Amino acid sequence: MSQPAFIPDSRALLTDLYQLTMLQAYFDRDMYEPAVFELFVRHLPPNRNFLLAAGLEQALDYLEALRFTDQDVEELRETGLFREDFLKWLRQLRFAGEVDAMPEGTVFFANEPILRITAPLPEAQVVESRLVNLVHFQTLIASKAARFVLAAPEKTLVDFGMRRAHGSEAAILAARASYVAGFTGTATTIAKPLFDIPIFGTMAHSFVQAHASEAAAFEHFARVHRGPIVLLIDTYDCEIGARRVVDLARRLRGERRIDSVRLDSGDLDALARRVRAIFDEASLEDIGIFASGSLDEHRIQALVEAGAPIDGFGIGTNLDVSEDSPALDCVYKLQEYAGTPRRKRSAHKATWPGRKQVHRHRDALGRIDHDVLTAVGDDDCGQPLLHPFMRAGVRVAARPSLESVRAHTRRQLAALTPELRALDVNAEYWVHIAPALTALAQRVDAEFP
Amino acid sequence: MSQPAFIPDSRALLTDLYQLTMLQAYFDRDMYEPAVFELFVRHLPPNRNFLLAAGLEQALDYLEALRFTDQDVEELRETGLFREDFLKWLRQLRFAGEVDAMPEGTVFFANEPILRITAPLPEAQVVESRLVNLVHFQTLIASKAARFVLAAPEKTLVDFGMRRAHGSEAAILAARASYVAGFTGTATTIAKPLFDIPIFGTMAHSFVQAHASEAAAFEHFARVHRGPIVLLIDTYDCEIGARRVVDLARRLRGERRIDSVRLDSGDLDALARRVRAIFDEASLEDIGIFASGSLDEHRIQALVEAGAPIDGFGIGTNLDVSEDSPALDCVYKLQEYAGTPRRKRSAHKATWPGRKQVHRHRDALGRIDHDVLTAVGDDDCGQPLLHPFMRAGVRVAARPSLESVRAHTRRQLAALTPELRALDVNAEYWVHIAPALTALAQRVDAEFP
Repeated sequence: MSQPAFIPDSRALLTDLYQLTMLQAYFDRDMYEPAVFELFVRHLPPNRNFLLAAGLEQALDYLEALRFTDQDVEELRETGLFREDFLKWLRQLRFAGEVDAMPEGTVFFANEPILRITAPLPEAQVVESRLVNLVHFQTLIASKAARFVLAAPEKTLVDFGMRRAHGSEAAILAARASYVAGFTGTATTIAKPLFDIPIFGTMAHSFVQAHASEAAAFEHFARVHRGPIVLLIDTYDCEIGARRVVDLARRLRGERRIDSVRLDSGDLDALARRVRAIFDEASLEDIGIFASGSLDEHRIQALVEAGAPIDGFGIGTNLDVSEDSPALDCVYKLQEYAGTPRRKRSAHKATWPGRKQVHRHRDALGRIDHDVLTAVGDDDCGQPLLHPFMRAGVRVAARPSLESVRAHTRRQLAALTPELRALDVNAEYWVHIAPALTALAQRVDAEFP
Repeated sequence: MSQPAFIPDSRALLTDLYQLTMLQAYFDRDMYEPAVFELFVRHLPPNRNFLLAAGLEQALDYLEALRFTDQDVEELRETGLFREDFLKWLRQLRFAGEVDAMPEGTVFFANEPILRITAPLPEAQVVESRLVNLVHFQTLIASKAARFVLAAPEKTLVDFGMRRAHGSEAAILAARASYVAGFTGTATTIAKPLFDIPIFGTMAHSFVQAHASEAAAFEHFARVHRGPIVLLIDTYDCEIGARRVVDLARRLRGERRIDSVRLDSGDLDALARRVRAIFDEASLEDIGIFASGSLDEHRIQALVEAGAPIDGFGIGTNLDVSEDSPALDCVYKLQEYAGTPRRKRSAHKATWPGRKQVHRHRDALGRIDHDVLTAVGDDDCGQPLLHPFMRAGVRVAARPSLESVRAHTRRQLAALTPELRALDVNAEYWVHIAPALTALAQRVDAEFP
């Protein structure tokens, strides 16, 4: 089954003003020659060994849907910055260019293009702000989520972060990006109808507090709830809560099964062991323990390595805002115009010119060993990572199911070396620049002094 | 003029699943008694002396618009978790409760409620996730933006962060929240029609690169652009770029005025001084210098204190994701149900029970001195900070203009002591807990063992 289409908020005025003022200048001079822009991350954050590409599907949705409505044009007219002939032209503008990209779930590194746009200059320019906005965010979250997946590969991992995600779209796309990376599901309800992502959820402290007693809250919930019953036991005291669960499980025997309990505060390792012992003593070995509460991947790895009897984790803020690195140095740069390679030379921000391909080389064990960055068409025996996704503004690759994207991610993460998969940053991954590309950069510099 | 209404994406399924499973249990037992929830920040981030409340307008918009559509109900039915009588009841659910809150732009501290909801339990519960999502984000960004305003009070400050904001809504609301805090405007075009926020924008490096030469790009832009002309001079070499601007300004004399140039990389202090000298030597004292490029409030303060001749700053990622603190410990907790105060006692997460008011006390100079947290109705001679905004689901306060919100912010920031307004965190601000509130917490603990 293909993914249900989630068309994100694609109002054309959701863009930086300079895109539109530049567009008017391009229009003024008929600068419609083909332009090539590439989207890449200049530097990895200090706490990432690799990144995971995500957001391509929403980027393609955006490009397909892009148009300036009558309302958009009227609102632009009111700014007084635009000419009538330009506004009229804007009304019929569509994205009819090409997209080449790494499939979602592909592991990538600094300076590697993950998406390339080839289109008449105005079309390629005007999409910059929203394209970066969409691809940056899901790549950020998928890359963060992958660290949790690597830290706790056998555990249930659920996105709990909606409330502190940065707005509605962030909440929705964080659920998607973490699922792409290998999470089990999300608490964000709307992710189910939008993306068919499994949803999880139980009760809050307020539910317990609103009842006359914790025991009454547990029994009420267990009798009414139709899905797996997960009881939150830390509102007052975890161990007392666990004993109340034992009482309830005995009373409900034959009627309903309690699936698990949730711990949301305190020393999770110690509490989980004590709660586990209480359940095991009562021959309730089948009640699971789920933990949440300001967890990051380091803490989860420590719990897993210590052998804490925790079956799953709910991860909120730390995931949904990528708390240790809430942004990537992600840019979209002009690399060629009218058939001539270009580059920017600003201090510490120089780019490699021309249309590029990334070739991945593997070691004898099938693990990723190094990449080579070449000009498109240059010979290299590595596996090329960018593939065609759109031609003349139309998708040329079928919309993959989210499950197939997850399978691709799993294979990618399985091909990481132990150094790359470690949470600590100690890996040196080589992105070689092909000699032909270095020579091209020198020629371009000579041409645009 | 009142603000144009921006109704954010308010699909009712944009919520955590547990809100809905709890709701079904409340429905099952007719638990409709009045509940009081308060929204507050438990701890200030380590790098903030104070926070600035924002997002109330969008929260009120959300509460007014909340309903479960036929589509929502159908999507919930498909999960298999809900009963038909509950789904039918959900279809007619509206928020008809009360909202008391601090006006947007109010300075606040840890443990102070900034918004209180009083409503039948299901209504107060179901709004939690989205309410926190909306208020948290704008409060986060306004609080960050205030630091830039304090660091460079005399400078033009423009939000440049759309592309790396976390999705569409974050981009839009970051423009609004930073304007609330005192920014001059934003580059995000749609903020103009939505909120009447001034928009700024000029040209990107790609514009310069797409032309045969930098000089040609400058002249083309200057001749076509209708707003203030700002030329980006760092694509190749800033000083050469500045000399090209001088040539152009002379050629265009009497026709068009060049407003300013933008520096986006390198040592901004040194470059700004050299560029300023080039312009002044050419008697072009009226061309301004605008700087951007990975700026945070510390770097801007250093540039201001060093006397760098920079007239304005464009601030992107660091503002729009609040990079040094991308989330606040913002929660929404049940404080009273059916007339009885409640509290959570979980380790390190205990709350003060009951409906509360924050009273602000000022010193002899009118500066904020300390706050007192009391139960609503308790005597205190300080100024109460929470005011009524909604009764029976209807707004009871006029929608303030954004300009009046900005004026309130200005007065609030002007009342900060030097310690609180410093970027470094060294201020101790006292939030006193009224003795009656401490006594109430003890009574509640005795009642819910």
